[in-house]
Amino acid sequence: MRTPAGNAQLALLLEVAGTPKPGNVDRHRDLGDLRFEHFLAGTVGTRRGLEMAENGSAVGSAFERAVAGMGDQGGGNTQFGALVLLVPLVRAASEELSQPVAEAVVEGTTVADAAAFYRAFEHVDVFVSDPPPDAEPLDVRRGTAAVPHLEDRGLTLLEVMELGAAGDDVAREWVTGFERSFAAAQRLATADGPITDRAAETYLSALAERPDTLVAKKHGEDVARSVTDRAAALLEADALSRDREGVETFADDLVSRGINPGTTADLTAAGLFIALEHEAIEI
Amino acid sequence: MRTPAGNAQLALLLEVAGTPKPGNVDRHRDLGDLRFEHFLAGTVGTRRGLEMAENGSAVGSAFERAVAGMGDQGGGNTQFGALVLLVPLVRAASEELSQPVAEAVVEGTTVADAAAFYRAFEHVDVFVSDPPPDAEPLDVRRGTAAVPHLEDRGLTLLEVMELGAAGDDVAREWVTGFERSFAAAQRLATADGPITDRAAETYLSALAERPDTLVAKKHGEDVARSVTDRAAALLEADALSRDREGVETFADDLVSRGINPGTTADLTAAGLFIALEHEAIEI
Repeated sequence: MRTPAGNAQLALLLEVAGTPKPGNVDRHRDLGDLRFEHFLAGTVGTRRGLEMAENGSAVGSAFERAVAGMGDQGGGNTQFGALVLLVPLVRAASEELSQPVAEAVVEGTTVADAAAFYRAFEHVDVFVSDPPPDAEPLDVRRGTAAVPHLEDRGLTLLEVMELGAAGDDVAREWVTGFERSFAAAQRLATADGPITDRAAETYLSALAERPDTLVAKKHGEDVARSVTDRAAALLEADALSRDREGVETFADDLVSRGINPGTTADLTAAGLFIALEHEAIEI
Repeated sequence: MRTPAGNAQLALLLEVAGTPKPGNVDRHRDLGDLRFEHFLAGTVGTRRGLEMAENGSAVGSAFERAVAGMGDQGGGNTQFGALVLLVPLVRAASEELSQPVAEAVVEGTTVADAAAFYRAFEHVDVFVSDPPPDAEPLDVRRGTAAVPHLEDRGLTLLEVMELGAAGDDVAREWVTGFERSFAAAQRLATADGPITDRAAETYLSALAERPDTLVAKKHGEDVARSVTDRAAALLEADALSRDREGVETFADDLVSRGINPGTTADLTAAGLFIALEHEAIEI
Protein backbone atom coordinates (compact mmCIF):
# COMPACT_ATOMS: atom_id res chain seq x y z
CA MET A 1 0.00 0.00 0.00
CA ARG A 2 1.63 3.23 -1.16
CA THR A 3 1.52 6.20 1.19
CA PRO A 4 0.80 9.72 -0.13
CA ALA A 5 4.55 10.40 -0.40
CA GLY A 6 4.95 7.23 -2.48
CA ASN A 7 2.01 8.14 -4.70
CA ALA A 8 3.45 11.62 -5.21
CA GLN A 9 6.75 10.12 -6.34
CA LEU A 10 4.95 7.70 -8.62
CA ALA A 11 2.97 10.63 -10.08
CA LEU A 12 6.22 12.44 -10.91
CA LEU A 13 7.58 9.31 -12.59
CA LEU A 14 4.41 8.61 -14.56
CA GLU A 15 4.25 12.23 -15.67
CA VAL A 16 7.73 12.13 -17.19
CA ALA A 17 7.09 8.66 -18.68
CA GLY A 18 3.84 9.76 -20.39
CA THR A 19 4.38 10.21 -24.12
CA PRO A 20 3.93 12.09 -26.39
CA LYS A 21 3.82 15.17 -24.15
CA PRO A 22 4.68 17.84 -26.73
CA GLY A 23 7.45 20.17 -25.60
CA ASN A 24 8.42 18.27 -22.47
CA VAL A 25 10.87 15.55 -21.55
CA ASP A 26 9.01 12.27 -21.86
CA ARG A 27 9.73 8.59 -22.34
CA HIS A 28 10.82 9.28 -25.93
CA ARG A 29 12.34 12.76 -25.81
CA ASP A 30 15.06 14.63 -23.98
CA LEU A 31 15.50 18.40 -24.16
CA GLY A 32 19.19 18.94 -24.86
CA ASP A 33 21.01 18.69 -21.54
CA LEU A 34 17.78 18.18 -19.61
CA ARG A 35 17.31 14.45 -19.84
CA PHE A 36 14.98 11.74 -18.65
CA GLU A 37 17.45 10.54 -16.04
CA HIS A 38 17.47 13.97 -14.38
CA PHE A 39 13.74 13.58 -13.73
CA LEU A 40 14.36 10.11 -12.27
CA ALA A 41 17.04 11.45 -9.92
CA GLY A 42 14.91 14.51 -9.14
CA THR A 43 12.03 12.26 -8.14
CA VAL A 44 14.15 10.08 -5.86
CA GLY A 45 15.41 13.27 -4.19
CA THR A 46 11.93 14.52 -3.30
CA ARG A 47 11.29 11.71 -0.85
CA ARG A 48 12.17 13.32 2.48
CA GLY A 49 10.25 16.51 1.76
CA LEU A 50 7.18 14.60 0.64
CA GLU A 51 7.35 12.45 3.77
CA MET A 52 7.50 15.61 5.86
CA ALA A 53 4.28 16.80 4.18
CA GLU A 54 2.69 13.39 4.73
CA ASN A 55 3.61 13.54 8.39
CA GLY A 56 2.09 16.97 8.92
CA SER A 57 5.14 19.25 8.69
CA ALA A 58 4.57 22.85 7.64
CA VAL A 59 4.02 23.17 3.90
CA GLY A 60 6.91 25.61 3.46
CA SER A 61 9.59 23.51 5.12
CA ALA A 62 8.38 20.30 3.46
CA PHE A 63 8.48 22.10 0.12
CA GLU A 64 11.95 23.51 0.71
CA ARG A 65 13.25 20.05 1.65
CA ALA A 66 11.62 18.45 -1.39
CA VAL A 67 13.12 21.06 -3.71
CA ALA A 68 16.59 20.71 -2.19
CA GLY A 69 16.48 16.96 -2.81
CA MET A 70 14.98 17.38 -6.29
CA GLY A 71 17.78 19.75 -7.23
CA ASP A 72 20.50 17.27 -6.29
CA GLN A 73 21.18 16.30 -9.94
CA GLY A 74 22.86 18.01 -12.85
CA GLY A 75 19.88 18.79 -15.09
CA GLY A 76 18.64 21.82 -13.18
CA ASN A 77 15.01 22.43 -12.38
CA THR A 78 13.00 19.31 -13.13
CA GLN A 79 9.93 19.42 -10.90
CA PHE A 80 9.74 22.68 -8.94
CA GLY A 81 6.27 23.59 -10.19
CA ALA A 82 4.94 20.09 -9.71
CA LEU A 83 6.11 20.21 -6.08
CA VAL A 84 4.30 23.53 -5.51
CA LEU A 85 1.15 21.52 -6.22
CA LEU A 86 2.10 18.16 -4.72
CA VAL A 87 3.30 19.29 -1.32
CA PRO A 88 -0.03 20.83 -0.18
CA LEU A 89 -1.92 17.96 -1.83
CA VAL A 90 0.17 15.36 0.03
CA ARG A 91 -0.41 17.30 3.23
CA ALA A 92 -4.18 17.27 2.50
CA ALA A 93 -4.04 13.53 1.74
CA SER A 94 -2.72 12.84 5.21
CA GLU A 95 -6.23 13.92 6.30
CA GLU A 96 -8.46 13.59 3.22
CA LEU A 97 -7.66 14.49 -0.36
CA SER A 98 -10.52 16.76 -1.41
CA GLN A 99 -10.72 20.29 -2.74
CA PRO A 100 -12.03 21.72 0.58
CA VAL A 101 -9.24 20.09 2.59
CA ALA A 102 -6.61 21.24 0.07
CA GLU A 103 -8.02 24.77 0.36
CA ALA A 104 -7.85 24.56 4.15
CA VAL A 105 -4.20 23.48 3.89
CA VAL A 106 -3.20 26.48 1.78
CA GLU A 107 -5.32 28.83 3.91
CA GLY A 108 -3.39 27.58 6.91
CA THR A 109 -0.02 28.66 5.49
CA THR A 110 1.97 31.32 7.31
CA VAL A 111 4.70 33.90 6.80
CA ALA A 112 7.19 31.20 7.80
CA ASP A 113 5.91 29.03 4.94
CA ALA A 114 6.38 31.96 2.58
CA ALA A 115 9.95 32.42 3.81
CA ALA A 116 10.72 28.73 3.24
CA PHE A 117 9.25 29.01 -0.27
CA TYR A 118 11.61 31.88 -1.04
CA ARG A 119 14.57 29.95 0.36
CA ALA A 120 13.69 27.06 -1.98
CA PHE A 121 14.64 29.24 -4.95
CA GLU A 122 18.22 29.11 -3.71
CA HIS A 123 18.39 25.35 -4.23
CA VAL A 124 17.66 25.35 -7.95
CA ASP A 125 17.49 27.72 -10.89
CA VAL A 126 13.81 28.35 -11.66
CA PHE A 127 12.65 30.38 -14.64
CA VAL A 128 10.57 33.37 -13.53
CA SER A 129 9.60 36.62 -15.20
CA ASP A 130 10.63 40.03 -14.02
CA PRO A 131 8.13 41.28 -11.45
CA PRO A 132 6.35 44.64 -11.91
CA PRO A 133 8.58 47.49 -10.62
CA ASP A 134 6.60 47.95 -7.41
CA ALA A 135 6.87 44.23 -6.60
CA GLU A 136 10.64 44.07 -7.06
CA PRO A 137 11.35 43.58 -3.32
CA LEU A 138 9.26 40.39 -3.52
CA ASP A 139 11.04 38.98 -6.57
CA VAL A 140 11.41 35.28 -5.76
CA ARG A 141 14.86 35.32 -7.32
CA ARG A 142 16.03 37.34 -4.34
CA GLY A 143 15.59 34.18 -2.26
CA THR A 144 16.46 34.64 1.40
CA ALA A 145 17.12 38.35 0.82
CA ALA A 146 13.40 38.90 0.28
CA VAL A 147 12.42 37.33 3.59
CA PRO A 148 12.59 40.50 5.75
CA HIS A 149 10.31 42.19 3.27
CA LEU A 150 7.85 39.28 3.44
CA GLU A 151 7.89 39.52 7.20
CA ASP A 152 7.36 43.29 7.18
CA ARG A 153 4.31 42.86 5.04
CA GLY A 154 3.15 39.78 6.91
CA LEU A 155 2.57 37.81 3.73
CA THR A 156 1.58 34.17 4.04
CA LEU A 157 2.48 31.66 1.36
CA LEU A 158 -1.12 31.71 0.11
CA GLU A 159 -0.88 35.51 -0.23
CA VAL A 160 2.37 35.16 -2.19
CA MET A 161 0.57 32.75 -4.52
CA GLU A 162 -2.34 35.19 -4.86
CA LEU A 163 0.11 37.84 -6.04
CA GLY A 164 1.42 35.47 -8.71
CA ALA A 165 -1.84 33.81 -9.73
CA ALA A 166 -2.65 36.11 -12.65
CA GLY A 167 0.37 35.05 -14.68
CA ASP A 168 1.16 31.62 -13.31
CA ASP A 169 -1.26 28.71 -13.49
CA VAL A 170 0.60 26.78 -10.80
CA ALA A 171 0.07 29.64 -8.31
CA ARG A 172 -3.49 29.92 -9.62
CA GLU A 173 -4.22 26.39 -8.42
CA TRP A 174 -3.62 27.55 -4.87
CA VAL A 175 -6.37 30.18 -5.16
CA THR A 176 -8.92 28.06 -7.06
CA GLY A 177 -8.99 25.01 -4.81
CA PHE A 178 -6.70 23.09 -7.21
CA GLU A 179 -9.48 23.14 -9.76
CA ARG A 180 -7.49 22.06 -12.81
CA SER A 181 -5.51 19.43 -10.86
CA PHE A 182 -8.75 17.74 -9.77
CA ALA A 183 -10.13 18.08 -13.31
CA ALA A 184 -7.00 16.37 -14.65
CA ALA A 185 -7.55 13.51 -12.19
CA GLN A 186 -11.07 13.11 -13.57
CA ARG A 187 -9.76 12.94 -17.11
CA LEU A 188 -7.17 10.36 -16.15
CA ALA A 189 -9.90 8.23 -14.59
CA THR A 190 -12.13 8.30 -17.67
CA ALA A 191 -9.38 7.95 -20.31
CA ASP A 192 -8.49 4.54 -21.72
CA GLY A 193 -5.38 2.40 -21.88
CA PRO A 194 -2.11 2.27 -19.99
CA ILE A 195 -1.53 5.11 -17.52
CA THR A 196 1.27 6.63 -19.57
CA ASP A 197 -1.14 6.97 -22.54
CA ARG A 198 -3.73 8.51 -20.24
CA ALA A 199 -1.13 10.95 -18.93
CA ALA A 200 -0.40 12.03 -22.51
CA GLU A 201 -4.09 12.52 -23.23
CA THR A 202 -4.63 14.49 -20.03
CA TYR A 203 -1.63 16.67 -20.79
CA LEU A 204 -2.92 17.46 -24.28
CA SER A 205 -6.39 18.28 -22.90
CA ALA A 206 -4.97 20.65 -20.31
CA LEU A 207 -2.75 22.29 -22.92
CA ALA A 208 -5.75 22.74 -25.20
CA GLU A 209 -7.77 24.31 -22.40
CA ARG A 210 -5.61 27.28 -21.41
CA PRO A 211 -2.35 28.76 -22.73
CA ASP A 212 0.61 27.44 -20.76
CA THR A 213 1.88 30.19 -18.45
CA LEU A 214 5.53 29.07 -18.58
CA VAL A 215 5.40 29.36 -22.37
CA ALA A 216 3.73 32.78 -22.04
CA LYS A 217 6.47 33.99 -19.66
CA LYS A 218 9.30 32.79 -21.91
CA HIS A 219 7.90 33.39 -25.39
CA GLY A 220 4.94 35.75 -24.96
CA GLU A 221 1.17 35.40 -24.91
CA ASP A 222 0.83 34.99 -28.66
CA VAL A 223 3.10 31.98 -28.82
CA ALA A 224 1.37 30.43 -25.81
CA ARG A 225 -2.00 30.99 -27.47
CA SER A 226 -0.86 29.43 -30.76
CA VAL A 227 0.45 26.34 -28.93
CA THR A 228 -2.88 25.96 -27.19
CA ASP A 229 -4.79 26.39 -30.43
CA ARG A 230 -2.73 23.68 -32.07
CA ALA A 231 -3.24 21.36 -29.07
CA ALA A 232 -6.99 22.06 -29.24
CA ALA A 233 -7.11 21.22 -32.94
CA LEU A 234 -5.27 17.92 -32.34
CA LEU A 235 -7.55 17.08 -29.45
CA GLU A 236 -10.63 17.92 -31.50
CA ALA A 237 -9.39 15.58 -34.24
CA ASP A 238 -8.79 12.82 -31.64
CA ALA A 239 -5.25 12.85 -32.93
CA LEU A 240 -3.76 10.70 -30.15
CA SER A 241 -5.82 7.81 -31.55
CA ARG A 242 -6.24 8.82 -35.19
CA ASP A 243 -3.24 10.96 -36.10
CA ARG A 244 -0.43 10.01 -33.79
CA GLU A 245 2.01 11.29 -36.38
CA GLY A 246 0.41 14.74 -36.11
CA VAL A 247 1.01 14.81 -32.36
CA GLU A 248 4.57 13.61 -32.79
CA THR A 249 5.21 16.33 -35.36
CA PHE A 250 3.80 18.92 -32.96
CA ALA A 251 6.10 17.52 -30.25
CA ASP A 252 9.18 17.68 -32.49
CA ASP A 253 8.28 21.22 -33.53
CA LEU A 254 7.97 22.47 -29.95
CA VAL A 255 11.24 20.78 -28.95
CA SER A 256 13.09 22.30 -31.91
CA ARG A 257 11.76 25.77 -31.05
CA GLY A 258 12.61 25.38 -27.36
CA ILE A 259 8.96 25.75 -26.32
CA ASN A 260 8.33 23.87 -23.10
CA PRO A 261 4.78 23.89 -21.66
CA GLY A 262 6.06 23.08 -18.19
CA THR A 263 3.05 24.35 -16.28
CA THR A 264 0.83 21.89 -18.11
CA ALA A 265 3.20 19.08 -17.14
CA ASP A 266 2.99 20.22 -13.50
CA LEU A 267 -0.81 20.06 -13.60
CA THR A 268 -0.61 16.58 -15.14
CA ALA A 269 1.61 15.40 -12.28
CA ALA A 270 -0.85 16.81 -9.73
CA GLY A 271 -3.74 15.08 -11.52
CA LEU A 272 -1.84 11.79 -11.50
CA PHE A 273 -1.27 12.08 -7.76
CA ILE A 274 -4.95 12.73 -7.05
CA ALA A 275 -6.05 9.88 -9.32
CA LEU A 276 -3.60 7.48 -7.63
CA GLU A 277 -4.69 8.52 -4.14
CA HIS A 278 -8.36 8.09 -5.04
CA GLU A 279 -7.60 4.75 -6.69
CA ALA A 280 -9.23 6.12 -9.83
CA ILE A 281 -6.30 4.67 -11.79
CA GLU A 282 -4.48 1.45 -11.06
CA ILE A 283 -1.06 0.25 -12.04
CA MET B 1 22.79 13.99 -0.88
CA ARG B 2 21.16 10.66 -1.69
CA THR B 3 21.30 7.93 0.95
CA PRO B 4 22.01 4.31 -0.01
CA ALA B 5 18.25 3.60 -0.16
CA GLY B 6 17.82 6.54 -2.54
CA ASN B 7 20.72 5.41 -4.70
CA ALA B 8 19.28 1.89 -4.83
CA GLN B 9 15.96 3.27 -6.06
CA LEU B 10 17.73 5.45 -8.60
CA ALA B 11 19.69 2.39 -9.78
CA LEU B 12 16.43 0.52 -10.38
CA LEU B 13 15.04 3.47 -12.35
CA LEU B 14 18.19 3.95 -14.42
CA GLU B 15 18.33 0.25 -15.16
CA VAL B 16 14.82 0.19 -16.64
CA ALA B 17 15.44 3.49 -18.49
CA GLY B 18 18.65 2.22 -20.10
CA THR B 19 18.07 1.41 -23.77
CA PRO B 20 18.49 -0.69 -25.86
CA LYS B 21 18.61 -3.55 -23.32
CA PRO B 22 17.74 -6.45 -25.59
CA GLY B 23 14.98 -8.67 -24.20
CA ASN B 24 14.05 -6.45 -21.26
CA VAL B 25 11.62 -3.65 -20.59
CA ASP B 26 13.46 -0.43 -21.27
CA ARG B 27 12.73 3.19 -22.09
CA HIS B 28 11.58 2.15 -25.56
CA ARG B 29 10.08 -1.30 -25.08
CA ASP B 30 7.38 -2.98 -23.03
CA LEU B 31 6.95 -6.75 -22.83
CA GLY B 32 3.24 -7.35 -23.40
CA ASP B 33 1.47 -6.75 -20.09
CA LEU B 34 4.73 -6.07 -18.28
CA ARG B 35 5.21 -2.38 -18.90
CA PHE B 36 7.55 0.44 -18.01
CA GLU B 37 5.11 1.90 -15.49
CA HIS B 38 5.12 -1.36 -13.51
CA PHE B 39 8.86 -0.90 -12.97
CA LEU B 40 8.28 2.69 -11.85
CA ALA B 41 5.62 1.61 -9.34
CA GLY B 42 7.75 -1.35 -8.27
CA THR B 43 10.66 0.98 -7.55
CA VAL B 44 8.57 3.38 -5.48
CA GLY B 45 7.34 0.39 -3.47
CA THR B 46 10.83 -0.78 -2.52
CA ARG B 47 11.51 2.27 -0.36
CA ARG B 48 10.67 1.00 3.12
CA GLY B 49 12.58 -2.25 2.70
CA LEU B 50 15.64 -0.47 1.35
CA GLU B 51 15.50 1.99 4.24
CA MET B 52 15.40 -0.95 6.64
CA ALA B 53 18.58 -2.29 5.04
CA GLU B 54 20.19 1.15 5.22
CA ASN B 55 19.32 1.36 8.91
CA GLY B 56 20.86 -2.01 9.73
CA SER B 57 17.80 -4.29 9.79
CA ALA B 58 18.35 -7.98 9.10
CA VAL B 59 18.85 -8.68 5.40
CA GLY B 60 15.94 -11.13 5.26
CA SER B 61 13.29 -8.87 6.73
CA ALA B 62 14.47 -5.84 4.74
CA PHE B 63 14.32 -7.98 1.62
CA GLU B 64 10.87 -9.33 2.39
CA ARG B 65 9.58 -5.78 2.99
CA ALA B 66 11.16 -4.50 -0.22
CA VAL B 67 9.63 -7.33 -2.25
CA ALA B 68 6.19 -6.82 -0.71
CA GLY B 69 6.29 -3.15 -1.72
CA MET B 70 7.72 -3.92 -5.15
CA GLY B 71 4.92 -6.39 -5.80
CA ASP B 72 2.21 -3.81 -5.09
CA GLN B 73 1.47 -3.21 -8.79
CA GLY B 74 -0.25 -5.20 -11.50
CA GLY B 75 2.71 -6.20 -13.68
CA GLY B 76 3.98 -9.02 -11.51
CA ASN B 77 7.63 -9.56 -10.69
CA THR B 78 9.62 -6.54 -11.80
CA GLN B 79 12.72 -6.43 -9.61
CA PHE B 80 12.94 -9.48 -7.32
CA GLY B 81 16.39 -10.50 -8.53
CA ALA B 82 17.72 -6.98 -8.42
CA LEU B 83 16.60 -6.72 -4.78
CA VAL B 84 18.42 -9.98 -3.91
CA LEU B 85 21.56 -8.05 -4.87
CA LEU B 86 20.64 -4.55 -3.71
CA VAL B 87 19.49 -5.34 -0.18
CA PRO B 88 22.83 -6.76 1.06
CA LEU B 89 24.71 -4.08 -0.91
CA VAL B 90 22.64 -1.30 0.72
CA ARG B 91 23.26 -2.92 4.08
CA ALA B 92 27.01 -2.95 3.30
CA ALA B 93 26.88 0.68 2.17
CA SER B 94 25.61 1.72 5.59
CA GLU B 95 29.13 0.74 6.71
CA GLU B 96 31.31 0.76 3.58
CA LEU B 97 30.46 -0.48 0.11
CA SER B 98 33.30 -2.86 -0.74
CA GLN B 99 33.48 -6.51 -1.71
CA PRO B 100 34.84 -7.61 1.71
CA VAL B 101 32.09 -5.76 3.59
CA ALA B 102 29.42 -7.16 1.26
CA GLU B 103 30.82 -10.64 1.88
CA ALA B 104 30.70 -10.05 5.62
CA VAL B 105 27.05 -9.01 5.31
CA VAL B 106 26.02 -12.20 3.53
CA GLU B 107 28.18 -14.32 5.85
CA GLY B 108 26.28 -12.77 8.75
CA THR B 109 22.90 -13.98 7.50
CA THR B 110 20.94 -16.46 9.62
CA VAL B 111 18.20 -19.05 9.40
CA ALA B 112 15.72 -16.26 10.15
CA ASP B 113 16.96 -14.40 7.08
CA ALA B 114 16.45 -17.54 5.02
CA ALA B 115 12.89 -17.88 6.36
CA ALA B 116 12.12 -14.25 5.41
CA PHE B 117 13.55 -14.89 1.94
CA TYR B 118 11.17 -17.82 1.49
CA ARG B 119 8.24 -15.76 2.74
CA ALA B 120 9.07 -13.11 0.11
CA PHE B 121 8.08 -15.59 -2.62
CA GLU B 122 4.51 -15.34 -1.35
CA HIS B 123 4.35 -11.64 -2.26
CA VAL B 124 5.02 -12.02 -5.96
CA ASP B 125 5.14 -14.67 -8.65
CA VAL B 126 8.82 -15.38 -9.40
CA PHE B 127 9.95 -17.71 -12.17
CA VAL B 128 12.04 -20.57 -10.81
CA SER B 129 12.96 -23.98 -12.16
CA ASP B 130 11.94 -27.25 -10.61
CA PRO B 131 14.48 -28.25 -7.97
CA PRO B 132 16.23 -31.65 -8.12
CA PRO B 133 14.00 -34.33 -6.50
CA ASP B 134 16.03 -34.48 -3.29
CA ALA B 135 15.78 -30.69 -2.84
CA GLU B 136 12.00 -30.56 -3.26
CA PRO B 137 11.36 -29.69 0.42
CA LEU B 138 13.46 -26.56 -0.14
CA ASP B 139 11.64 -25.45 -3.29
CA VAL B 140 11.29 -21.70 -2.85
CA ARG B 141 7.81 -21.88 -4.36
CA ARG B 142 6.68 -23.60 -1.16
CA GLY B 143 7.15 -20.23 0.58
CA THR B 144 6.35 -20.32 4.29
CA ALA B 145 5.67 -24.06 4.10
CA ALA B 146 9.38 -24.68 3.56
CA VAL B 147 10.42 -22.77 6.68
CA PRO B 148 10.28 -25.72 9.16
CA HIS B 149 12.53 -27.66 6.83
CA LEU B 150 14.99 -24.74 6.65
CA GLU B 151 15.01 -24.61 10.42
CA ASP B 152 15.53 -28.36 10.78
CA ARG B 153 18.54 -28.15 8.54
CA GLY B 154 19.73 -24.88 10.09
CA LEU B 155 20.28 -23.26 6.72
CA THR B 156 21.28 -19.61 6.63
CA LEU B 157 20.33 -17.37 3.71
CA LEU B 158 23.90 -17.56 2.43
CA GLU B 159 23.67 -21.37 2.49
CA VAL B 160 20.41 -21.20 0.55
CA MET B 161 22.16 -19.07 -2.05
CA GLU B 162 25.07 -21.53 -2.18
CA LEU B 163 22.58 -24.28 -3.05
CA GLY B 164 21.26 -22.18 -5.92
CA ALA B 165 24.49 -20.65 -7.16
CA ALA B 166 25.26 -23.24 -9.84
CA GLY B 167 22.23 -22.38 -11.94
CA ASP B 168 21.44 -18.83 -10.91
CA ASP B 169 23.86 -15.96 -11.42
CA VAL B 170 22.05 -13.77 -8.89
CA ALA B 171 22.60 -16.35 -6.14
CA ARG B 172 26.15 -16.78 -7.47
CA GLU B 173 26.89 -13.12 -6.65
CA TRP B 174 26.36 -13.93 -2.98
CA VAL B 175 29.08 -16.59 -3.07
CA THR B 176 31.61 -14.68 -5.20
CA GLY B 177 31.69 -11.41 -3.26
CA PHE B 178 29.39 -9.74 -5.81
CA GLU B 179 32.13 -10.04 -8.38
CA ARG B 180 30.10 -9.26 -11.50
CA SER B 181 28.16 -6.46 -9.79
CA PHE B 182 31.40 -4.68 -8.93
CA ALA B 183 32.73 -5.37 -12.44
CA ALA B 184 29.57 -3.80 -13.90
CA ALA B 185 30.17 -0.71 -11.75
CA GLN B 186 33.67 -0.46 -13.22
CA ARG B 187 32.31 -0.63 -16.74
CA LEU B 188 29.74 2.03 -16.00
CA ALA B 189 32.48 4.30 -14.71
CA THR B 190 34.67 3.92 -17.79
CA ALA B 191 31.88 4.01 -20.42
CA ASP B 192 30.96 7.27 -22.16
CA GLY B 193 27.86 9.37 -22.48
CA PRO B 194 24.61 9.70 -20.56
CA ILE B 195 24.07 7.13 -17.82
CA THR B 196 21.25 5.42 -19.66
CA ASP B 197 23.60 4.76 -22.60
CA ARG B 198 26.24 3.48 -20.21
CA ALA B 199 23.66 1.18 -18.63
CA ALA B 200 22.86 -0.26 -22.05
CA GLU B 201 26.55 -0.83 -22.77
CA THR B 202 27.14 -2.46 -19.41
CA TYR B 203 24.13 -4.70 -19.90
CA LEU B 204 25.37 -5.85 -23.30
CA SER B 205 28.85 -6.53 -21.90
CA ALA B 206 27.46 -8.62 -19.07
CA LEU B 207 25.21 -10.51 -21.46
CA ALA B 208 28.20 -11.21 -23.74
CA GLU B 209 30.26 -12.48 -20.82
CA ARG B 210 28.11 -15.33 -19.51
CA PRO B 211 24.82 -16.92 -20.62
CA ASP B 212 21.89 -15.43 -18.74
CA THR B 213 20.65 -17.92 -16.15
CA LEU B 214 17.01 -16.80 -16.35
CA VAL B 215 17.08 -17.49 -20.08
CA ALA B 216 18.75 -20.85 -19.43
CA LYS B 217 16.05 -21.82 -16.92
CA LYS B 218 13.20 -20.84 -19.21
CA HIS B 219 14.54 -21.80 -22.65
CA GLY B 220 17.49 -24.10 -22.04
CA GLU B 221 21.27 -23.75 -22.07
CA ASP B 222 21.56 -23.73 -25.85
CA VAL B 223 19.27 -20.74 -26.28
CA ALA B 224 21.05 -18.91 -23.46
CA ARG B 225 24.40 -19.62 -25.10
CA SER B 226 23.21 -18.40 -28.52
CA VAL B 227 21.93 -15.15 -26.99
CA THR B 228 25.28 -14.60 -25.33
CA ASP B 229 27.15 -15.36 -28.56
CA ARG B 230 25.06 -12.82 -30.42
CA ALA B 231 25.61 -10.21 -27.69
CA ALA B 232 29.36 -10.92 -27.84
CA ALA B 233 29.42 -10.45 -31.62
CA LEU B 234 27.60 -7.12 -31.33
CA LEU B 235 29.92 -5.99 -28.56
CA GLU B 236 32.96 -7.03 -30.56
CA ALA B 237 31.70 -4.98 -33.51
CA ASP B 238 31.13 -1.97 -31.19
CA ALA B 239 27.56 -2.13 -32.43
CA LEU B 240 26.11 0.28 -29.85
CA SER B 241 28.14 3.02 -31.57
CA ARG B 242 28.53 1.66 -35.10
CA ASP B 243 25.53 -0.58 -35.73
CA ARG B 244 22.74 0.59 -33.49
CA GLU B 245 20.26 -0.95 -35.92
CA GLY B 246 21.86 -4.34 -35.31
CA VAL B 247 21.33 -4.02 -31.57
CA GLU B 248 17.73 -2.86 -32.05
CA THR B 249 17.08 -5.85 -34.34
CA PHE B 250 18.52 -8.17 -31.69
CA ALA B 251 16.26 -6.50 -29.11
CA ASP B 252 13.15 -6.89 -31.27
CA ASP B 253 14.03 -10.51 -31.98
CA LEU B 254 14.39 -11.39 -28.29
CA VAL B 255 11.15 -9.61 -27.42
CA SER B 256 9.24 -11.43 -30.16
CA ARG B 257 10.60 -14.80 -28.99
CA GLY B 258 9.80 -14.02 -25.33
CA ILE B 259 13.45 -14.28 -24.33
CA ASN B 260 14.15 -12.11 -21.31
CA PRO B 261 17.72 -11.97 -19.92
CA GLY B 262 16.46 -10.80 -16.54
CA THR B 263 19.52 -11.89 -14.57
CA THR B 264 21.71 -9.64 -16.67
CA ALA B 265 19.36 -6.73 -15.96
CA ASP B 266 19.61 -7.49 -12.22
CA LEU B 267 23.41 -7.35 -12.40
CA THR B 268 23.19 -4.05 -14.26
CA ALA B 269 21.02 -2.57 -11.51
CA ALA B 270 23.51 -3.72 -8.86
CA GLY B 271 26.37 -2.20 -10.86
CA LEU B 272 24.48 1.10 -11.15
CA PHE B 273 23.96 1.18 -7.39
CA ILE B 274 27.65 0.59 -6.67
CA ALA B 275 28.71 3.21 -9.23
CA LEU B 276 26.29 5.78 -7.75
CA GLU B 277 27.44 5.08 -4.20
CA HIS B 278 31.09 5.40 -5.20
CA GLU B 279 30.30 8.55 -7.16
CA ALA B 280 31.88 6.88 -10.17
CA ILE B 281 28.95 8.13 -12.22
CA GLU B 282 27.12 11.41 -11.80
CA ILE B 283 23.68 12.52 -12.86
